[in-house]
Amino acid sequence: MIQQQNLPNIGIIGATGAVGKVCLSILDEKNYPADKIHLFASSRSEGKGINYKDKKLIVKNANKNSILGLEVVFISADSDVSKKIAPMAVSQGSLVIDDGSAFRMEENVPLVIPEVNEKDILYHEGIISIPNCTTTPLAMALNILRKVSKIKRVQVSTYQAVSGSGSMAISELKNQVDQISNSQEITKSVYPHQIAFSLIPQVDDFESDGYTKEEHKMINETKKILHDNTLSISATCVRVPVYMCHSEVVSVDFENEVDIEKVLNLFSNSSGISMVGSGQDSDYPTPAMVEGSDSVYIGRIRKDNSSKYGINFWLVSDNLRKGAALNAIQIMESAIKLNKIPNFNK
Amino acid sequence: MIQQQNLPNIGIIGATGAVGKVCLSILDEKNYPADKIHLFASSRSEGKGINYKDKKLIVKNANKNSILGLEVVFISADSDVSKKIAPMAVSQGSLVIDDGSAFRMEENVPLVIPEVNEKDILYHEGIISIPNCTTTPLAMALNILRKVSKIKRVQVSTYQAVSGSGSMAISELKNQVDQISNSQEITKSVYPHQIAFSLIPQVDDFESDGYTKEEHKMINETKKILHDNTLSISATCVRVPVYMCHSEVVSVDFENEVDIEKVLNLFSNSSGISMVGSGQDSDYPTPAMVEGSDSVYIGRIRKDNSSKYGINFWLVSDNLRKGAALNAIQIMESAIKLNKIPNFNK
Repeated sequence: MIQQQNLPNIGIIGATGAVGKVCLSILDEKNYPADKIHLFASSRSEGKGINYKDKKLIVKNANKNSILGLEVVFISADSDVSKKIAPMAVSQGSLVIDDGSAFRMEENVPLVIPEVNEKDILYHEGIISIPNCTTTPLAMALNILRKVSKIKRVQVSTYQAVSGSGSMAISELKNQVDQISNSQEITKSVYPHQIAFSLIPQVDDFESDGYTKEEHKMINETKKILHDNTLSISATCVRVPVYMCHSEVVSVDFENEVDIEKVLNLFSNSSGISMVGSGQDSDYPTPAMVEGSDSVYIGRIRKDNSSKYGINFWLVSDNLRKGAALNAIQIMESAIKLNKIPNFNK
Repeated sequence: MIQQQNLPNIGIIGATGAVGKVCLSILDEKNYPADKIHLFASSRSEGKGINYKDKKLIVKNANKNSILGLEVVFISADSDVSKKIAPMAVSQGSLVIDDGSAFRMEENVPLVIPEVNEKDILYHEGIISIPNCTTTPLAMALNILRKVSKIKRVQVSTYQAVSGSGSMAISELKNQVDQISNSQEITKSVYPHQIAFSLIPQVDDFESDGYTKEEHKMINETKKILHDNTLSISATCVRVPVYMCHSEVVSVDFENEVDIEKVLNLFSNSSGISMVGSGQDSDYPTPAMVEGSDSVYIGRIRKDNSSKYGINFWLVSDNLRKGAALNAIQIMESAIKLNKIPNFNK
């Protein structure tokens, strides 16, 4: 982190949500000064105090006046909130770093993973989007793999934690587990079906082609981040009864033969990626292990026996950290470095 | 079911295990007469009484004498038990229907799903094997799909319930859930890692190519059942914190273009398969829904956007029923019909 006296004033919209909380705890780890952090949430939480180091930060409601003077505005809230707040913040000179899907596919909005496409920050016009929490680890892995050989096709099955749906979903899983252990009827409001001890092969709404919006996000965002529209990707997104960390089974077909050893080496030496295990014993990443970690963890790399030039692997990433809050903060750090925060880098 | 006076005497080896219990409950549903059912388990359970209809059946230890006169012997136990008991039973004329992996790939042992390859029963020499609980639903789906066009490649990611590892694994998940809710340390004995609210991308031991034995089973057994050694299949098997039902994300590439409507129609009219939903709303099978059902449930069928002639779908099947006990009983019914129970069909 750069020197403390020289840090932007940041606002966190959605500070009481699952991502907002992790954002604060990462800022805490980085010793970000309390007087440069401003918290916002829905009117329900207005006035609430949140402990940060030895201070109590008071949650405000975000509006034209309350966000005045913020140099960076993180938004992790519903798309409606992003669409209302972002233009307001941009017009008063803030850099908006948005965690939602509202602006991700817009042409003048960079969609950034600093390890992959940091330079895309240079073309922002006020808003930078964070990729979907399943896209980020996948794009990071593919960005490494395309150095080995051109990628022809990618297939991915996800195992997504409930925290990706926010705090209410975490409570819903907890409640259902309790209801089952007390032989009570199961109640649900976030998900259309029971999630405790079950699976839901649907994340976000369905589109006319039978894919869900989440699956389209993974496909389209990955192409945008990698600047490669020729990539063939298919995804099936499944919600699993896990609180934290998204996992993915990934299969990649290449144009040419790839050496597994070379892949292992590349992954081992890539920033933001941690390799676990040799692929021949019970040593691989799991959600319980990865929770709270910053890296994308990769394991079980092996030749795909069904493909001429293919590999299969398994990845796990903390969806609230690298999948959201950490990536947001890293984008801010890159923007500081690249002199791209309008009111801060003058 | 055929008339009650004309039913074979059956023995269930492993009667107190997860599959054994389901086997008994299916026999109960079918009104199988109590006096034709004989229960066996390890010496730990010897003498234990198990309620069946209005009778109490006493668990015996399986040995040369106690299995004498049984016309059909189901074995659902460790491979060691299968290897000890099966030859004994065959030598005294029983038909052995084995749920384990001990004999599955042996040339003179049919590996049978009655809806797919019932006629393979004709070549048995005393032992018929039941496929692995993840293989059965996959092979049933592929057997239908190959009627549409030749299958070139199959990729599957599994979401496997803990009941596939037996009763002890069910307790391990339950205990870990309790331990977490009471902030206690997590204990484990069945799995190498925490399974509660986490995932384990390993089912069975690792092989030298980086695949697990479970993945090899799915690949090799599917080829044997479908009588097609040219099929290219890759599998990644993952244990999930679900008690009952295995789920799978399946991607199939065909030789020629396939009409999704035709696929939907074929699945809808296939014995043992139930189609759920149109693929455009929250209507699809989930483990919580499918538990206790006999069919293989298929949903989310759609064109694979990453492949010229491919489809993706989602399937769920009760691993203890169609994946094990039900398939075993159906094999017996087929063997009766085909006159292939040595001491019974005289």
